[in-house]
Amino acid sequence: MKAEQNELLVRTGPGTATGELFRRYWLPALLASEVAERDGPPVRVKLLSERMIAFRDSKGRLGLIDEFCAHRGVSLYFARNEESGIRCAYHGWKYDATGQCVDVPSEPAESGFCGKIKLKSYPLLERGGVIWVYMGPPGEQPPPPEWEFATVPADQSYTSKRLQECNYLQAMEGGIDSSHVSFLHSGALNTDPLFKGSKGNQYNLGDKKPVRNAEDGKYYWRITPWVMPCFTMVPPRADHPMHGHFWVPIDDENCWAWSFDYHPVRALTELERQAMEAGKGVHVAVDRNFRPLQNKDNDYLIDRAAQRAGRSFSGVDGFGMQDASVQESMGPIQDRTKENLVSTDNGIIMARHRLMKAAKELAAKGTLPAGRDPAHQKIRSVAVVLPAGTPFKEGAGEALKAREGVAQTSV
Amino acid sequence: MKAEQNELLVRTGPGTATGELFRRYWLPALLASEVAERDGPPVRVKLLSERMIAFRDSKGRLGLIDEFCAHRGVSLYFARNEESGIRCAYHGWKYDATGQCVDVPSEPAESGFCGKIKLKSYPLLERGGVIWVYMGPPGEQPPPPEWEFATVPADQSYTSKRLQECNYLQAMEGGIDSSHVSFLHSGALNTDPLFKGSKGNQYNLGDKKPVRNAEDGKYYWRITPWVMPCFTMVPPRADHPMHGHFWVPIDDENCWAWSFDYHPVRALTELERQAMEAGKGVHVAVDRNFRPLQNKDNDYLIDRAAQRAGRSFSGVDGFGMQDASVQESMGPIQDRTKENLVSTDNGIIMARHRLMKAAKELAAKGTLPAGRDPAHQKIRSVAVVLPAGTPFKEGAGEALKAREGVAQTSV
Amino acid sequence: MKAEQNELLVRTGPGTATGELFRRYWLPALLASEVAERDGPPVRVKLLSERMIAFRDSKGRLGLIDEFCAHRGVSLYFARNEESGIRCAYHGWKYDATGQCVDVPSEPAESGFCGKIKLKSYPLLERGGVIWVYMGPPGEQPPPPEWEFATVPADQSYTSKRLQECNYLQAMEGGIDSSHVSFLHSGALNTDPLFKGSKGNQYNLGDKKPVRNAEDGKYYWRITPWVMPCFTMVPPRADHPMHGHFWVPIDDENCWAWSFDYHPVRALTELERQAMEAGKGVHVAVDRNFRPLQNKDNDYLIDRAAQRAGRSFSGVDGFGMQDASVQESMGPIQDRTKENLVSTDNGIIMARHRLMKAAKELAAKGTLPAGRDPAHQKIRSVAVVLPAGTPFKEGAGEALKAREGVAQTSV
Repeated sequence: MKAEQNELLVRTGPGTATGELFRRYWLPALLASEVAERDGPPVRVKLLSERMIAFRDSKGRLGLIDEFCAHRGVSLYFARNEESGIRCAYHGWKYDATGQCVDVPSEPAESGFCGKIKLKSYPLLERGGVIWVYMGPPGEQPPPPEWEFATVPADQSYTSKRLQECNYLQAMEGGIDSSHVSFLHSGALNTDPLFKGSKGNQYNLGDKKPVRNAEDGKYYWRITPWVMPCFTMVPPRADHPMHGHFWVPIDDENCWAWSFDYHPVRALTELERQAMEAGKGVHVAVDRNFRPLQNKDNDYLIDRAAQRAGRSFSGVDGFGMQDASVQESMGPIQDRTKENLVSTDNGIIMARHRLMKAAKELAAKGTLPAGRDPAHQKIRSVAVVLPAGTPFKEGAGEALKAREGVAQTSV
Repeated sequence: MKAEQNELLVRTGPGTATGELFRRYWLPALLASEVAERDGPPVRVKLLSERMIAFRDSKGRLGLIDEFCAHRGVSLYFARNEESGIRCAYHGWKYDATGQCVDVPSEPAESGFCGKIKLKSYPLLERGGVIWVYMGPPGEQPPPPEWEFATVPADQSYTSKRLQECNYLQAMEGGIDSSHVSFLHSGALNTDPLFKGSKGNQYNLGDKKPVRNAEDGKYYWRITPWVMPCFTMVPPRADHPMHGHFWVPIDDENCWAWSFDYHPVRALTELERQAMEAGKGVHVAVDRNFRPLQNKDNDYLIDRAAQRAGRSFSGVDGFGMQDASVQESMGPIQDRTKENLVSTDNGIIMARHRLMKAAKELAAKGTLPAGRDPAHQKIRSVAVVLPAGTPFKEGAGEALKAREGVAQTSV
Repeated sequence: MKAEQNELLVRTGPGTATGELFRRYWLPALLASEVAERDGPPVRVKLLSERMIAFRDSKGRLGLIDEFCAHRGVSLYFARNEESGIRCAYHGWKYDATGQCVDVPSEPAESGFCGKIKLKSYPLLERGGVIWVYMGPPGEQPPPPEWEFATVPADQSYTSKRLQECNYLQAMEGGIDSSHVSFLHSGALNTDPLFKGSKGNQYNLGDKKPVRNAEDGKYYWRITPWVMPCFTMVPPRADHPMHGHFWVPIDDENCWAWSFDYHPVRALTELERQAMEAGKGVHVAVDRNFRPLQNKDNDYLIDRAAQRAGRSFSGVDGFGMQDASVQESMGPIQDRTKENLVSTDNGIIMARHRLMKAAKELAAKGTLPAGRDPAHQKIRSVAVVLPAGTPFKEGAGEALKAREGVAQTSV
């Protein structure tokens, strides 16, 4: 890649082409549990390099507004959430959930002054335990998201988030690139409670090439969907819940790795939910700021003895931190001018080109990108064994679609 | 404000217009207790972006000189304070309290070499428990400062300092702007031992508009003096000691918040002094580097339950940290191009214009600014109830002057 | 010095003139103990602003290669050291000790793909408990180093390293400049087990001028060799082991201070070795990243009471940290345009000019610098008492040469 292509893809602040692209989608902003309480404390939210605060008002309405008071620039993180609005701690200016200023105590109410003051705000909606935000032009707001994990009954789904200290793109590329599983994650496949016991694991481990042989001349296919701009799913294993990720830019050097787990046709078991809460599977144990307890400051608690003995290929514990450790080690923003890509990188190459094309066409012609239509979101990952001659699109077929009441296609 | 106006006001390093303005005054540099001991360890001092060290020599003289040895640039913080001078730890070059090099051991005394070496130094004086510095041209040094807090008997006065991690101007503006008291400090007015029990508190809390009604159609006036460049006072309450602040730039992103408390006509009580030492009133509990224990790294230990219950409007404990929390939250240097000012901001608007005008006139014509004359320093804050038709200048009158043996005018 | 001269001397990254000069020598890179184990974990190595990893493979070969995988830029610090090569944790690309890629699992072996992938690597050699690296053009590689400390039997020698948080030059200048000993180190001369009991100490302390008088009109000479680019030795005392340093740039604001101790003709005693391991003499107690436990974050644990009482001139404990404290206090890169040098600085002035001249001649004409020839390395420091009229070169004579089986010349 050329340096300017890399720049185009990795910058998502206001006014950037890829930033504008992201601003045409509903993106995960918060766990619903972070703003569950009416009149609860405001929460800092940084997305696409914009600093904001979120809160739930006395009537249950959600607000996401500029972090800083219009008066003197004080952070509304320190504001008081009270009586259907948030009141700045300094001089008591008050804003409602839309960012509208509704009280400036020092000015006479009849002056109409506060009616002219409005902070930037973005619409939020709650679905599937996630608060979603749309940060683009109001006229181009897409319909609410209909990802399957967010529309199944609540007892069938579990979602977490963790800070990843690098640009979103190198994180997301790990979600597209399935070929690293047989290496980076090899130690965890047969031990993690949310992955073990799948015949697919043996195909993964038995043949580390990306073309993986199954029995009788058949192939083991793992189909990993990517939906613009930053949604990926992991192919399922056995009857384990399915899982996937959103990779949402905080700023150009940090992102949120969202991880969801759900089963299309049954409730999660108590054991599964406990494992997810404990940071197993695609989830990770984090501190109260959602920073992983394994992080770059402690070398991800790499266990060199386990690595050497082969109990863990990377020595880092857990799928999520195995990914994060190698991806953060590339630096805050990977220099893609120095890569040497191979055929297994075709997925990420294609994704990069799609993103660049979409960002450019939006900037040049206002063309709205794909992935905004809920129909594009009703998708599943698939793991399937197919005869050697069968194209995966044909062989997987309907299995790639999210169908209510129909279980996933797994091996 | 325009960006260039903000720049003019916030930059105080060597060679800046506002920096030159500050260099025409005696400014608080150290607590006397920091350099109390003859031959005690040198103390790092950074003011107006200049790095220096202070020490008291064997004969009790105070020195404030360049931090770095003229020989090879070693910090004199590591020097030995001995026999009327400070000796660099590396090669033993020695300087007296004026910065004059008095010994270079490797050179023959008769060479006269060390006589040619002199470090930058500034005059200090001690008054009211504070070491004051004048950092400007020797020919323009003003008379010693005569602020009332620094000239009353020592048992009537108490002074502390704390680091504030933002530009001096946004900190000082909080000292000028009295209108925030009814909001930011509302919870503390009736509980702090150094504020409670004043009828004025009820006026503050009973009517949050800046025009505050008292009984019988009268007004409750709070008069907050600001003296160039960075002195402010808080109007008194009941018979509590009076208090105020200096806001002294360390560099462009940090300042010292000096806080003094004194009573014009009586000694502080033991309970008052204990409360001040404990960080009550305008004082703050700090670590050995004078950094508050409540600080931005711990969100000032904000108590969301107290905030929600209304026991504390801001949730942050203490007057000083209530101010610091909102002011630091504006960022290291407030961007004043984004403000929306209202009539209660007239005080800070006027102060900004005075500072800009004084800085420009000093730069252009060498005009020495106001506030250097001790007569300008013999001033008091006032709290008073006046009939509706009485202008405050007339009604407060003599009460604004510091008069020996006369108590403050308070409510 | 002019600013551009300082820049020339302190910058050692790729492509800089002084960086190229350093790249013409064998430099200490690692303690042998850091990569002692076959298939042990890789070790991060940063030298001359280049980031690399070192490892010992299954057959005992040492490798020092680019830190980042050629594929997607993942740090090979997280790689697995296995079967004669190091395998990236992400997709399993494998490199041997020369940086040659020997396996890309996703590509067919017959494609010959991995044969075209080779990471930057530099030759290492092990001698005297140190792993040495040559980072220059292969055709200009000098013979293996033959410093005496590295060629005596292992029981006669001890080597340690510590991080110093400043540019290499100001650190090295401390090793050249002997005149600071009577000040900075005065307290330690008579108490450190590896220095005390030498008559030379009394000369040092009895006359602090650089020309030091001994008995009967004689002079006490201390001869401190410096060999290009960054080797220095300390003159010996009594029969204590001799010691010296390498000052190796990590980047422009950090360096490794290597410290060796050896006796030319006898094994170190158990007490000597224990003292060295405890951080006595020129050694220092460090954490697992070789950062000293006394460091700038804790003001080197300066003991002001000891300094005041004169038990320690600088108040900082230990020779190594006495040097590091004053040198780091100059800032990450000393500004040499502000110095005031004196006659005792002639040594460092000459060294600077030698380095600049050598760097310029290498850049302009490809002239290879001095110090590469093992004959230049067979050198010793000397402490000797000479009659007043005897030039030191004549008086020290053969004592300056490393002669097998002959003890050092000491006082």
